[in-house]
Amino acid sequence: MKRYCFGIDVGGTTIKCGLFQTDGKLLEKWEVKTRTENSGEKILPDIADTVEKKLQEKEISKEEVIGIGVGVPGPVNSQGDVIQAVNLFWGYKKVSEELEALTGIPAMAGNDANVAALGEAWKGAAAGEDNVVMVTLGTGVGGGIIVNGRILSGTHGAGGEIGHMNVNHEETESCNCGNQGCLEQMASATGIVRMAKKILCSCEDESMLRQKEITAKTVFDAYKQGDQLAQRVVEIFGEYLGGALACIACVTDPSVIVVGGGVSKAGKILTDCVEKYFKKYAFSSCKNTPIVLAKLENDAGIYGAAKMVL
Amino acid sequence: MKRYCFGIDVGGTTIKCGLFQTDGKLLEKWEVKTRTENSGEKILPDIADTVEKKLQEKEISKEEVIGIGVGVPGPVNSQGDVIQAVNLFWGYKKVSEELEALTGIPAMAGNDANVAALGEAWKGAAAGEDNVVMVTLGTGVGGGIIVNGRILSGTHGAGGEIGHMNVNHEETESCNCGNQGCLEQMASATGIVRMAKKILCSCEDESMLRQKEITAKTVFDAYKQGDQLAQRVVEIFGEYLGGALACIACVTDPSVIVVGGGVSKAGKILTDCVEKYFKKYAFSSCKNTPIVLAKLENDAGIYGAAKMVL
Repeated sequence: MKRYCFGIDVGGTTIKCGLFQTDGKLLEKWEVKTRTENSGEKILPDIADTVEKKLQEKEISKEEVIGIGVGVPGPVNSQGDVIQAVNLFWGYKKVSEELEALTGIPAMAGNDANVAALGEAWKGAAAGEDNVVMVTLGTGVGGGIIVNGRILSGTHGAGGEIGHMNVNHEETESCNCGNQGCLEQMASATGIVRMAKKILCSCEDESMLRQKEITAKTVFDAYKQGDQLAQRVVEIFGEYLGGALACIACVTDPSVIVVGGGVSKAGKILTDCVEKYFKKYAFSSCKNTPIVLAKLENDAGIYGAAKMVL
Repeated sequence: MKRYCFGIDVGGTTIKCGLFQTDGKLLEKWEVKTRTENSGEKILPDIADTVEKKLQEKEISKEEVIGIGVGVPGPVNSQGDVIQAVNLFWGYKKVSEELEALTGIPAMAGNDANVAALGEAWKGAAAGEDNVVMVTLGTGVGGGIIVNGRILSGTHGAGGEIGHMNVNHEETESCNCGNQGCLEQMASATGIVRMAKKILCSCEDESMLRQKEITAKTVFDAYKQGDQLAQRVVEIFGEYLGGALACIACVTDPSVIVVGGGVSKAGKILTDCVEKYFKKYAFSSCKNTPIVLAKLENDAGIYGAAKMVL
């Protein structure tokens, strides 16, 4: 009987691994180093190796394993082929196929942000929901769209790339992607710093942000303490992100929106501000869609990866 | 053997009906009047009646019919319940269930714009594609999202309500939905007229639009003849619509985008202008997603409705 599955979350530094029961119980989690040398050729063999060792250690036969799900930092098409993963030094790579060949166990790859969304929809903040949008606010802005309980990968693996929705046609500075006016330029950790610096330079108003290094955290901390300039930054952030989520709700009409990533550690004041603008811009029937904080933190990836193969 | 299905497209004035083979061949199409009196209580019995008559006429038994699909002008949830259909004077109505009870044939209801998208994805401009976005430019702006070959209805039946994506946070005039800055206010037939009038009032520039009644058609006709003011209107239209479609591509990453509805009769000059701005704002991997004109015109609804039950 198939009672186990693996969820693997490949990052640029470490590979997070989880052994799960098929009912979603996480039995054990561990990490191995990501060896990116020689175009990351060791990464899949290392995953195969750590899976084999865990099976031996736990005395589990391969017949008892339903599959291995892998989250990868790059676009992945619906066949489980990675188009490119810059941080792993991978070009086009048939990850599902290669890992199956290495392990003899069915494998499936997905984009890491999409996979994290699936994790939250399975066992996290949106547990049990079939129709979920997750936005991950980190150095960049990632996203994942779950429709009918499954990841929406899209034709080019760009499903859920909501960080690159254009939210400001007037923006002149460029995003890392080459376009101007992406959500990522407004709502990521670096985007928040960029906006704060812009506002600080444009006026002489007093602000506690003038005394220290500016990070997304110091901006939200200053906001909590009533700093008016920080308030302006957070309102702009909230308006762009809330507005973008309202647009997404007009497309997929999710039952819940999950906000995760490092920036989301600001907590309820962040979702409150986003929700205020979401309600302003959302279509009438979606105005009350809940916006909640992610729950699984760094484990969302292994949960979602495991769910992919179930 | 199940060899037939019906596709029904309910409008405020007429009910369009199609008898199909399950391979997609349209055997016959006809119309009956939409009787909206008494809260539209006659509409479903009239559909049941015309279906029964057609079966008798063609000597087809009910056992040979796989189902009846119905497109309805209003939000429909994934169970086939209509939340509301203002033009039919319907409140909440279990359309699939009621029609099944009336006919003894399995029935499924969907939103008309979603259903038209499914029609184009089945036998129209996006034939054979599983991942399609369709935008319908009429009096309003409707939309339909097809993911994995199926309609994305959403939690409140608002999936694909792309006419109400906010595309301009600065807009002060209100959309019919109550919000300000919806795509519908910029890209619908009425939206184009609104923008043209606004620009005409804001300047003294000569334009052939000053001499006649302004409609979306006269604006595009003037554009074709090189009228500079019409050009400004069409560029604004193209920038808002192309920008919104680029945002949608970051969400669902379709393999093709279909533009239909009365306004789309302007033809290739319209899609060229939309495509120019789509390319400007789209995420790198989606920039070459084709934007094509709808093919099935008024039959998209009956095709898509039929496909729903297959």
